[in-house]
Amino acid sequence: MKIAVDAMGGDNAPQAIVEGVIQAAKENSQVQFQLYGDQEKVKACLTEDIDNIVVIHTSEKIESDDEPVKAIRQKKDASMVVAAKAVKEGKADALFSAGNTGGLLTAGLLIIGRIKGIDRPGLMPILPVIGQENRQFILMDVGANADCKPKNIHQFAILGSYYAKYVLHIDQPTVGLLNNGTEATKGNELMKAVYPLLEEDTSLNFTGNVEARDILNGVSDVIVTDGFTGNAVLKTIEGTAGTLLKLLKTNILAQGLSGKIGALLLKNTFKGLRNTLDYSQFGGAVLFGLKAPLVKAHGSSDKTSVYHALKQIETIVSSSVIKDLVTYFETTEQNSNEASH
Amino acid sequence: MKIAVDAMGGDNAPQAIVEGVIQAAKENSQVQFQLYGDQEKVKACLTEDIDNIVVIHTSEKIESDDEPVKAIRQKKDASMVVAAKAVKEGKADALFSAGNTGGLLTAGLLIIGRIKGIDRPGLMPILPVIGQENRQFILMDVGANADCKPKNIHQFAILGSYYAKYVLHIDQPTVGLLNNGTEATKGNELMKAVYPLLEEDTSLNFTGNVEARDILNGVSDVIVTDGFTGNAVLKTIEGTAGTLLKLLKTNILAQGLSGKIGALLLKNTFKGLRNTLDYSQFGGAVLFGLKAPLVKAHGSSDKTSVYHALKQIETIVSSSVIKDLVTYFETTEQNSNEASH
Repeated sequence: MKIAVDAMGGDNAPQAIVEGVIQAAKENSQVQFQLYGDQEKVKACLTEDIDNIVVIHTSEKIESDDEPVKAIRQKKDASMVVAAKAVKEGKADALFSAGNTGGLLTAGLLIIGRIKGIDRPGLMPILPVIGQENRQFILMDVGANADCKPKNIHQFAILGSYYAKYVLHIDQPTVGLLNNGTEATKGNELMKAVYPLLEEDTSLNFTGNVEARDILNGVSDVIVTDGFTGNAVLKTIEGTAGTLLKLLKTNILAQGLSGKIGALLLKNTFKGLRNTLDYSQFGGAVLFGLKAPLVKAHGSSDKTSVYHALKQIETIVSSSVIKDLVTYFETTEQNSNEASH
Repeated sequence: MKIAVDAMGGDNAPQAIVEGVIQAAKENSQVQFQLYGDQEKVKACLTEDIDNIVVIHTSEKIESDDEPVKAIRQKKDASMVVAAKAVKEGKADALFSAGNTGGLLTAGLLIIGRIKGIDRPGLMPILPVIGQENRQFILMDVGANADCKPKNIHQFAILGSYYAKYVLHIDQPTVGLLNNGTEATKGNELMKAVYPLLEEDTSLNFTGNVEARDILNGVSDVIVTDGFTGNAVLKTIEGTAGTLLKLLKTNILAQGLSGKIGALLLKNTFKGLRNTLDYSQFGGAVLFGLKAPLVKAHGSSDKTSVYHALKQIETIVSSSVIKDLVTYFETTEQNSNEASH
C-alpha cells in the first residue's frame, strides 16, 4: 500500500505532518509513505532514516487563502497537486492533506476523479456518539456541495452506508435524513424530494427523519444532508462545545476551587470532555465518492491527528469499499440504462 | 395594554400558564391579561382574585400533534384560535402561547395577518451571548419558512434590526448572514443572492457573512438565514449543550468527588451553565412581521418562562416597533412602486 501525503498543507506543516508519518511508518512497514513537499524543509523534519518513507520534491504549495480552482489549475508543481496526480496515475493508493479544503476538493474532483455514476462526492467527518464509547456516526455532506439535488443526497446515503459498513464495521448501518422534524412530511422542498428516494431504496436501512438535537446521541449511524446545512451543523457543534468548555472553566474557577482540588478536577474533567469530543482521533474527513480515498485533516492538526488520519486511510484502502462501490454504481447505472431502453 | 393568553397550550398548561400570568399581572396592574381556555380548568389554577386577569371560556384546544392548518381552520373555538381572533379584532394587543408551533404560525398568518409589504414573517428566538452577561442576539428564521427567497431573508434582516433596536435597545445592531465561510463570495445559490441585497441596503448595519461556530460568541446582533438552516442550527445548539451537560455530570461524578464537595460543585456549576444557556429568561420566540406581536414559549415552559415571555410582550407593545415597521414597509413599498412606474 502506498499513501501520498501533502507534506506542506496545514498550519503546522511540514513538522506535524512528517512527525505523524514517522509514527505511522514505524508501526506498519508494509505501507509506503510518499512525502510531497519542499525537499529541504521536509527532510529537516525527518529526523530518522525510515525505509518506507520517501520524499518527492515539489517547488510550490497551495496556500490556505488561495482561490481553490485557480490555484489547483495554475500551481502545477504544488505538493497537493503532485500528490493527487500520483494517486491518479496509480503511483499511490490514497491522498492525505491538512491543507486548503477547497483546493483539496478541487484536486479530488479534477485530478483523482469521481467514481463513475457518482455525481457529487461528499465530505464526511466521522464524529463521536457522546456517552457511548467507541461508537461513531457519519455526517455527510459537510461542505463539498453547498447546493444539492435530491439525487446527490441519496448518493450520500449509499456512500455513507458503505463507509459505515466496510470501515466502521457497522452491520446494516441506519441512515437518517437531517430534517426540521421527525414526521415523514417535514422538510423544505429539497428534503421532501429526498425522503421517498431513501425510503424506496431497499439497499439502505433508512429509519426516517432525524433532528439536529439528537445526532450526537447516536440517533443514526449515517446522517445525510446538503453541504450547506451539514456545514452549519458541524460548525455549530464545534462552536457550542468550544464556548461551553470555556464557560465551564470560568464557572469552576468561580467556585473558589482554584486550589489543588479545583485544578485537578478541571484537568480531569476537561481531559474527559476533550477526548470525547475530539473527533480527530477517528481520522479526518473523507471526500468520499472518488476513485481513491482522499482524507482531509483539520488545518490545525498535530502529529497525533495526522497519525490517526493515516491509520484511517490504511483501513479504507485495506477494505474493498471503493472497489465494491464502483461495482455497485456500475450495476445501478447499467440497470437504470436498461430500464430506460 | 391587553395581552391575549392561550391558557391551554403547552405541556404544563393550564397550570404553568396561569401561574406565570398571576406573577406578571401582580407586577403590572396596567396590563390586562385575558386567559383563553377551559373555564373550569383555568379557574381551578387561578388561586387568587386579581382584577387585571379575565377568563374567556373556549371549548376546544389545539393539540400538540394536530395538523396545524387543518386544526386552526376547523377548531373554531380552540383557545389559540379565539385568542388570535381577539388580537385581530383589536380586543387585545398581542398573543402569547406555549402550544403547537405550527398551529401558532398558522394562526398568526391566517388570523392576525402580516404587516403589509412583508412576505414572510420569521420565527426569532432571543439567544444569550455566552460569556457576556446581559448581551443577546437574534437568530432568524428558525423554522417558520423552510424554503426562503432572497427577499425573505433580506426582510428578516430588517425585522431583526428593528427588534434589536427597539426591544433589546441595541444602537445600530450589526447584521450577519449565516454562511459556510466569511468571505463575501461564499455560500449556496440562495445566500449568494442574499448577500448583495444586504450589502446594498444602507438602512442595515450589515457586517458580512458569519459562520455558525461564532454565533454564540456574539459575532453579530442579528443573524439571518433561511428557516431550514436556522432550525438545524438552533437544534444543534440545544442538542450539543444538553449532551455536554450530561457528559459533564458523568465526568465530575467519575472523579470520585461524589461527596459534599462534588455535589456542591455540580450544583453550582450546573446552575451557572444552565442560567447562561437558558434563553427562556429572555422570553419566547417572536413570530415577527405580523400586525401584532405573537410570542411562542417552549412547550415545556414553566411559570417562570411564561412570566418572562409576558414581560417581553409588554416591552414589545410599549415600544413603537410594530407601528414603525408598518410605516417603513409602507414607504418602501410606495417607493418601489413609484420607481417601477
